[in-house]
Amino acid sequence: MDINNNTESLPYVHKVGLPPKQTLFKEITAAVKETLFSDDPLRQFKDQPGSRKFILGIQTLFPIFEWGRDYSFSKFKGDLVAGLTIASLCIPQVIIILIHLNFVFVCTFADSSFVPPLVYAFMGSSRDIAIGPVAVVSLLLGTLLQDEIDPSKDPINYLRLAFTATFFAGITQLTLGLFRLGFLIDFLSHAAIVGFMAGAAITIALQQLKGLLGVAYFTKKTDIVSVMRSVWSTVHHGWNWQTIVIGVSFLAFLLLARHIGKKKKLFWMAAIAPLVSVILSTLLVYVTHADKHGVKTVHEIKRGVNSPSLNEIFFSGEYLGKGFRIGVVAGMIALTEAIAIGRTFASMKDYHIDGNKEMVALGTMNVVGSMTSCYVATGSFSRSAVNFMAGCNTAVPNIVMSLVVLLTLELITPLFKYTPNAILSSIVISAVIGLIDIEAVILIWRIDKFDFFACMGAFFGVVFSSVEIGLLIAVSLSFAKILLQVTRPRTAILGKLPRTTVYRNIQQYPEASKVQGILIVRIDSAIYFSNSNYIKERILRWLTDEEEHLKENNLPRIQFLIVEMSPVTDIDTSGIHALKELYSSLQKRNVQLVLANPGPMLVDKLHASRYAELIGEDNIFLTVAEAVHTCAPKMKELVEP
Amino acid sequence: MDINNNTESLPYVHKVGLPPKQTLFKEITAAVKETLFSDDPLRQFKDQPGSRKFILGIQTLFPIFEWGRDYSFSKFKGDLVAGLTIASLCIPQVIIILIHLNFVFVCTFADSSFVPPLVYAFMGSSRDIAIGPVAVVSLLLGTLLQDEIDPSKDPINYLRLAFTATFFAGITQLTLGLFRLGFLIDFLSHAAIVGFMAGAAITIALQQLKGLLGVAYFTKKTDIVSVMRSVWSTVHHGWNWQTIVIGVSFLAFLLLARHIGKKKKLFWMAAIAPLVSVILSTLLVYVTHADKHGVKTVHEIKRGVNSPSLNEIFFSGEYLGKGFRIGVVAGMIALTEAIAIGRTFASMKDYHIDGNKEMVALGTMNVVGSMTSCYVATGSFSRSAVNFMAGCNTAVPNIVMSLVVLLTLELITPLFKYTPNAILSSIVISAVIGLIDIEAVILIWRIDKFDFFACMGAFFGVVFSSVEIGLLIAVSLSFAKILLQVTRPRTAILGKLPRTTVYRNIQQYPEASKVQGILIVRIDSAIYFSNSNYIKERILRWLTDEEEHLKENNLPRIQFLIVEMSPVTDIDTSGIHALKELYSSLQKRNVQLVLANPGPMLVDKLHASRYAELIGEDNIFLTVAEAVHTCAPKMKELVEP
Repeated sequence: MDINNNTESLPYVHKVGLPPKQTLFKEITAAVKETLFSDDPLRQFKDQPGSRKFILGIQTLFPIFEWGRDYSFSKFKGDLVAGLTIASLCIPQVIIILIHLNFVFVCTFADSSFVPPLVYAFMGSSRDIAIGPVAVVSLLLGTLLQDEIDPSKDPINYLRLAFTATFFAGITQLTLGLFRLGFLIDFLSHAAIVGFMAGAAITIALQQLKGLLGVAYFTKKTDIVSVMRSVWSTVHHGWNWQTIVIGVSFLAFLLLARHIGKKKKLFWMAAIAPLVSVILSTLLVYVTHADKHGVKTVHEIKRGVNSPSLNEIFFSGEYLGKGFRIGVVAGMIALTEAIAIGRTFASMKDYHIDGNKEMVALGTMNVVGSMTSCYVATGSFSRSAVNFMAGCNTAVPNIVMSLVVLLTLELITPLFKYTPNAILSSIVISAVIGLIDIEAVILIWRIDKFDFFACMGAFFGVVFSSVEIGLLIAVSLSFAKILLQVTRPRTAILGKLPRTTVYRNIQQYPEASKVQGILIVRIDSAIYFSNSNYIKERILRWLTDEEEHLKENNLPRIQFLIVEMSPVTDIDTSGIHALKELYSSLQKRNVQLVLANPGPMLVDKLHASRYAELIGEDNIFLTVAEAVHTCAPKMKELVEP
Repeated sequence: MDINNNTESLPYVHKVGLPPKQTLFKEITAAVKETLFSDDPLRQFKDQPGSRKFILGIQTLFPIFEWGRDYSFSKFKGDLVAGLTIASLCIPQVIIILIHLNFVFVCTFADSSFVPPLVYAFMGSSRDIAIGPVAVVSLLLGTLLQDEIDPSKDPINYLRLAFTATFFAGITQLTLGLFRLGFLIDFLSHAAIVGFMAGAAITIALQQLKGLLGVAYFTKKTDIVSVMRSVWSTVHHGWNWQTIVIGVSFLAFLLLARHIGKKKKLFWMAAIAPLVSVILSTLLVYVTHADKHGVKTVHEIKRGVNSPSLNEIFFSGEYLGKGFRIGVVAGMIALTEAIAIGRTFASMKDYHIDGNKEMVALGTMNVVGSMTSCYVATGSFSRSAVNFMAGCNTAVPNIVMSLVVLLTLELITPLFKYTPNAILSSIVISAVIGLIDIEAVILIWRIDKFDFFACMGAFFGVVFSSVEIGLLIAVSLSFAKILLQVTRPRTAILGKLPRTTVYRNIQQYPEASKVQGILIVRIDSAIYFSNSNYIKERILRWLTDEEEHLKENNLPRIQFLIVEMSPVTDIDTSGIHALKELYSSLQKRNVQLVLANPGPMLVDKLHASRYAELIGEDNIFLTVAEAVHTCAPKMKELVEP
């Protein structure tokens, strides 16, 4: 079983396979296909007649025609319950975030939870996502827009810029989807998103202190230092105790409901608590006349159902560029959130989400939205989770929700006169606190320290500076990590595991033993310009260390250096140069270089560069075991005389 | 020999090793050490008494005290010949590039080939490098400086800015060396440098058309379009046929000498040809009085030996920032060239170059240079090659050269009155043509197509736009390549090679056979946020493809998916998430996930994230062979009933 027990007869030595030569065109086609069409989206169209192709095309673009055919009353029952549940969560929670962000948003708030979910229901492929305006994107958009136009001074242009940004957010999403560049959003790492969301949650919660404390004048900046200073400066004359009592007690109620709602069977508690709070607090104010004692209420809300807004979008002028920039940022963030949600629930129910198709759906939804007085909508994590738990089957709950929200708001708008602002702040705070995922942060710390730094970078960037800075820090740190790994790859000394022909890292397997006269090194990365010199010098350093150690112990010197190439997936011209330098350095030291198990790319390039000829074809082996086995007898000859 | 022949008795199954747990501090220390001190620079100081440490320290800082002790007369003979040879190459070639670039540089030209080589001789660790002003850096510096100050209008500030830039170039190099950030220059890939050098050569050669054609008015822009337009517009009234005759005939002579000089024994032909040309052409003009017939000559050159220039450096004002920016760019380019040369020749003679120490030497040299009227000097490839072939032994040729150049120029400066500009242009053109390395480009094309695009990007960027754009394109393309590789890593289906227990890519080894009921997939990259989703979906796609294929052929379905993890050197939190999703998708399909040979980092993180518990410790194997061997009997039970 162990080929090394038997040194007399050499085992059958496999030749290292040279992959079939490909033409340049084929190579490029394959690379483009794997990069942009890795999910092979046209697979189902293959070998189908024309009419079937047309139907499949329609179904691909509008999945509702696919699942709609099997739709049954029993499915609808589940969807109806889910739709009503997310509507009850949606009505107070999200819509009212907007009142706090900017009053002018009010006229679009209901619209954003009406048109986009309808569009998504037709085009989206996720069965669980709940579409609508969400806290993080709303905050981001509000902050970015305020930097350009002060909504209290120029509300009309502010709103127009919001529509412009929404339009370009949709266009961005649509473009990424159509050009199949969906993989770009993968560049936001999980760790970065966790940090970013937690930071955004803190920022949003801090903004709500205005409503919760009944403060009249408040800073427009979002960083924690400005906000705390603003809170502090108003402590003596601005706080209103009645407001604080209402706000804090309902916040406690909401957090309790959240906590109870964690049990799967009681999830509806968390879902309806916000609506209950709004109703109770409105009644309370109406009964106690607290609005006469300084408790601020929402008062009247102007309503207008989805008036066309296409002609309000800036298609020229200075705001075009600004709207474009804001739209791209908001669109990307919205996309990241929606795709992450879609993927999470798809893997729970094991169906497939096509990221690029999803982007087309989200993009269309926002472009249509921007023309009907909506601002950027996306998938909401909390509502999607409730939707999932309430037993949704298709995208129908989105339709149910949008209709219910619209009707309810038409009916209850007059009641908002007595709804205290504080209750809305409480709802927002209790909602965004769920975005702070301490467990995930602990897990990140345990798995990967560098990820943790990226996560904290995003968090502190958002909290102490701004949303954009936080994102920038997180993305830069994530990239730095990849580059660092590529620049300083790991190398390992291999030893033979007892009673096997398996060679493994001697640090991981202390029982593995070195082979006399042979040093076996594994390179754990593709060899590129950024690491080729390091790899060369690291290998020579392993050799120097080993030789010193051997000399001290009067052991025979190293005669063969076997480089295990399994993990070396690719090499570039700088890498070939470094290997050539390694070979000539080893020649000077009278050590023979031997390669084991180069992959297809590598074999191809070793031949193209004539490196295989340089070190000799017979010094390239299929496995380390074969290399050791062939080198060991040769060495004897050298030692004995 | 083949464990699979014998399915009755299971082989000894190795446990996958869990590396010893490290503390966070140790982990970070190890990472910092490997990133910044990968060459272990303090190794020789270990276990040495204090006085010895001091001597070693001095020798480390000034290697001349190390090799100086063994310096002998026989070594000096070789060094003297080498020094004289590179001096004869240096006098016309490099110095005179500068006249063409900017007249004001003249007073510093000799200085730059005097002070820096002296400083380097004391501090540098390369034995072959020849220090002085070089074409590419001169061009770059000239272009960048001209963008800020027009030398014909404000020569004094122009010169001061040049010293400022040189100062900061030195500081940049010194800082990189001291903070051991030398690995940053590895980010300029070999391919990018080849393209950049070729582009720079074309640009420099085009600039020389002014002298070669005897054109009076010439554009200051460096891109090919501007230059050709400038040449074309002067065709009717600006060209001087006598100048062209002299220039072209000596250019032919120089190119011939270059060609002959490629033979190792005749290398001196190429080395002395420029000096010979200058002498001959000067005589020619003196005899024929061609300077009276429109042949432009150098006329007088102001000389001043290394006056102190410390007080001319801008340490405040608007030029401080500009000088800093130019200095950083020029310093990095100069560094890249010097380190590349040093490494090349060090590997030829097999001695070790410490990149960071080398940077300290180069940085000090330029800081001192900037205070003694020099501009950025670095290693010249052509002169270093001549130096190497002339048999240099130490850094002494640099001292010889600097003295010879200084004395010669003092003597022959008056003769420059009759030296035609055209001859200098010819020398420059013949010199820079050597920077165009067609063979390297062909090799790059053969080895790596993407590298070739980076190379061409740098080339066309420099030729059609500017040096900075060319560099930017090359660096961006190189990074894009790394990121693309990390985003779309390769995966492969493995099969068993006949008569072995070795599993290899079935594309590379068509004789490898799949194992019934088991799909074996290898992931060829670390799993990071940028590729985790792709990897998960790619594996599921392999599975779907295989299952369809099996169904068509009525073969038993896949029951085990073995993922070979050998090349997976690292994983982050996004990667763990993707693996969890993969596991739950496979559970839904009733396929068992099995991992083979996870490395130390991976084992550590699989345990930290409890993933090992999730899929079951007994589903993680040391090798694919063991995994197959353990799964195969289990499968039978499932199939038989």
